[in-house]
Amino acid sequence: MDALEAILTRRSIRHYKSEPIPAELVQKLIEAGLSAPSACDFRPWHLIVVNDRKTLDEIPSFHQHALMLPEAPLAILVCGEPDVSRYWQQDCAAASQNILLAAHALGLGAVWLGLHPREKRTKPMQQLLGIPDHVTPLSLIAIGFPAEEKEPQGRFQAGKVRYNKW
Amino acid sequence: MDALEAILTRRSIRHYKSEPIPAELVQKLIEAGLSAPSACDFRPWHLIVVNDRKTLDEIPSFHQHALMLPEAPLAILVCGEPDVSRYWQQDCAAASQNILLAAHALGLGAVWLGLHPREKRTKPMQQLLGIPDHVTPLSLIAIGFPAEEKEPQGRFQAGKVRYNKW
Repeated sequence: MDALEAILTRRSIRHYKSEPIPAELVQKLIEAGLSAPSACDFRPWHLIVVNDRKTLDEIPSFHQHALMLPEAPLAILVCGEPDVSRYWQQDCAAASQNILLAAHALGLGAVWLGLHPREKRTKPMQQLLGIPDHVTPLSLIAIGFPAEEKEPQGRFQAGKVRYNKW
Repeated sequence: MDALEAILTRRSIRHYKSEPIPAELVQKLIEAGLSAPSACDFRPWHLIVVNDRKTLDEIPSFHQHALMLPEAPLAILVCGEPDVSRYWQQDCAAASQNILLAAHALGLGAVWLGLHPREKRTKPMQQLLGIPDHVTPLSLIAIGFPAEEKEPQGRFQAGKVRYNKW
């Protein structure tokens, strides 16, 4: 899929077919995430690929917007180390966006679930996956072959753009 | 350009030809930025397109990594409103990444310059462009037709990836 088309037509997909994601597609999603830019090239990120059914089914108990996870064959948790870079949130968000775009381009559907800065979500996630305190879960991306279709949104808003001055 | 190729081959480009960026390409960069996902669809972002020569030349006086700007015909400042969304940094970083990828796919070169959370950079930028206090400059993306070529980096690192547990 063309890059501009992927950027402009990506939508949040929350219903998935039950079929698992082939390992070679998972690998492409990982490579996309790790290809994000990072300030000073510090790469303050860690990815945790989650396909364990019990783990995925547990997450909605502490994340009220994660109700699609029992339907999802895969999720990728993007974590960061705040002590490594003051730009950790931005770097990990760029990695998350790369994963979303790669999923769409590969014919998968995905949705970004926010974690940080909500401790009610980050703490139980750390506990569930055994993530140490110095590593903060930033986003969880639910992924599967799409079981819903969505038309592209026109997200351009002229009022959001200025030229040379506020 | 294919989406996966764009994600995997994008590099930070810091040298540009002097020719200006055609308006239709600027519009595509803007549309790409505004097509990012945002938590609860709050879209806490604002873009400022900067092509005023004097303004671009001024920025290195308060941003020591912006030395390429006197060479750049264009920069896009991505700003956010912290009061609108607790996820504003992440949303604006996703928008920034979309702009970087779109630039690369369109044959342009670009580099992400960090601003927030460094007040030594955000405050003078607010002053220079007349940005109100409730809007925070997050990133500045320098853009131009590339005057340097860089080989794709292999940014995959196996140590950055875990499966189902930390």
